[in-house]
Amino acid sequence: MDTVRNYKILDCTLRDGGYYTNWDFNKELVHTYFKSFNELPVDYLEIGYRSSPMKEYLGEYFYCPIYVLQEAKSLSNKKLVIILNEKDVRPEHVKDLLEPCKDLIDMVRIALDPEYLGRALRLAEEIKKLGFEVGFNVMYMSKWKQYGDFLNQIKEVDAVADYFYMVDSYGGVYPQDVKEVINLVKERTKCKIGFHGHNNMELALINSLTALEHGADIIDATVTGMGRGAGNLKTELLLTALNASQGLKTDFNALSAVVDVFERLQQDHGWGTNLPYMVSGANSLPQKDVMEWVTRRFYSFNSIIRALYNQKEKVQDN
Amino acid sequence: MDTVRNYKILDCTLRDGGYYTNWDFNKELVHTYFKSFNELPVDYLEIGYRSSPMKEYLGEYFYCPIYVLQEAKSLSNKKLVIILNEKDVRPEHVKDLLEPCKDLIDMVRIALDPEYLGRALRLAEEIKKLGFEVGFNVMYMSKWKQYGDFLNQIKEVDAVADYFYMVDSYGGVYPQDVKEVINLVKERTKCKIGFHGHNNMELALINSLTALEHGADIIDATVTGMGRGAGNLKTELLLTALNASQGLKTDFNALSAVVDVFERLQQDHGWGTNLPYMVSGANSLPQKDVMEWVTRRFYSFNSIIRALYNQKEKVQDN
Repeated sequence: MDTVRNYKILDCTLRDGGYYTNWDFNKELVHTYFKSFNELPVDYLEIGYRSSPMKEYLGEYFYCPIYVLQEAKSLSNKKLVIILNEKDVRPEHVKDLLEPCKDLIDMVRIALDPEYLGRALRLAEEIKKLGFEVGFNVMYMSKWKQYGDFLNQIKEVDAVADYFYMVDSYGGVYPQDVKEVINLVKERTKCKIGFHGHNNMELALINSLTALEHGADIIDATVTGMGRGAGNLKTELLLTALNASQGLKTDFNALSAVVDVFERLQQDHGWGTNLPYMVSGANSLPQKDVMEWVTRRFYSFNSIIRALYNQKEKVQDN
Repeated sequence: MDTVRNYKILDCTLRDGGYYTNWDFNKELVHTYFKSFNELPVDYLEIGYRSSPMKEYLGEYFYCPIYVLQEAKSLSNKKLVIILNEKDVRPEHVKDLLEPCKDLIDMVRIALDPEYLGRALRLAEEIKKLGFEVGFNVMYMSKWKQYGDFLNQIKEVDAVADYFYMVDSYGGVYPQDVKEVINLVKERTKCKIGFHGHNNMELALINSLTALEHGADIIDATVTGMGRGAGNLKTELLLTALNASQGLKTDFNALSAVVDVFERLQQDHGWGTNLPYMVSGANSLPQKDVMEWVTRRFYSFNSIIRALYNQKEKVQDN
């Protein structure tokens, strides 16, 4: 679409947004999604997890069965991506999980805790053997400096990964942190670098632009920011900003068509930031609990914030 | 509350939020507002406009009659502020409009187009004679460099103003723009400097923190970002960020109480950014029209964005 830009964009709305719909999406929405993105300057679409069966009910885009992937492939002109949760998948599962996807999927990403980089490296070897591009989505970047071993091991990803992602899991990093961490990473790997920002503090755009400015090769975003907790960088915000500042060619009719269907879904599920997510982001506290408290609408904001502060001070609380 | 900080915070929810409620607010909400802010590290509350009678209906906080100011004064322990629209007020109106407020209001701000700085200076002289603090809220900072005369005249505010505000009317400036403009201003005036950010591009927080870092003395914000068009920097976001990064002492129970009542109001009025506001912000297009189009829900996003692009290219369109 535009050949001069030196970075890629990955939209992961269906994958990250699935936290709000339990990975169920209706057919009409999915069609609008793929059709709209065919006209937009985005390179990769991450459509879900690929997982072994779990005990509780989880929707289509948590498992991405072959018929889901085939339909996506038939509707989309983009590179397609799935992600694995490192904690749930071992190297011996890779062949069964991924061999059937060989002609349907271009990249497999691994979501991992930095503590398990070693295990993820062995998993990646198996994935690479099947010929996929491989991405490492490494969580908790605001705490990486506390994981000394992890920083020393980063160089080992060169052998097995195409993209090494910094994930701002808490949505609490600032542009100066992005700059600092990207430099730490660039000193240690020749891998292409990605940034996945959460929007608790409304810093996802400026953090992503800062990452690009300091040499990031790929940026993640989701339509309307739909994603776990406070959500992600909004795809429409990233494209609008790059269109105005760098002339990124963007079809705003296609963009508004896909934004429109997700905004309607948002009225039911209410993702986006709010005071409890801001507090969890600003203090690097896990937003998994906050998401449960907020979406159940059972607790007052007051009690959520009190609970968060107790977590921060490691006081026990119900 | 905390004596060491070297900057002030002004909350202007009732004034800027009035664009969504036609400056009507119910008594209970107003009570919660003042009571909560009594416990929060905010210095000034701007409660509305003071205006001569207009033809169309406009609510209490557009006129701020004396009984409204008296009630605010009785409920609040903060400095109280009103704002005048420079385009609607002449020096000869000042005595009638403002003399009755002398013991109720601490600061009077003037919202002005940079083109009319000369006229605003004469207006400010009259206001200053009555003993108020005076603020200049100068709009369109993304275009100031195109107003050569304005930049040359800035030094004249020293004689009549306490605060000189950079207003990002379009919500489209980036941190590097804030840094550039604040330096242009600091070279020209000894006045204390303020920043009023809009949130079209979700840059209001980082722009405000950048302004503080480069010497701004006062920051504007509104609860839940309630304000014209895409809205403002969210007060709760600013306080949460400063609490976590600088130890600003913040009562989160009081903060969540006031956020809660405005979030309920937001469900009816739906302020906040969206794709049309992002496009208007990124391209410095007026958001007044966009606000009308979006809130009437009569036009599709597609047609709004097409209209915005036509404005940008100066094509006529209905």
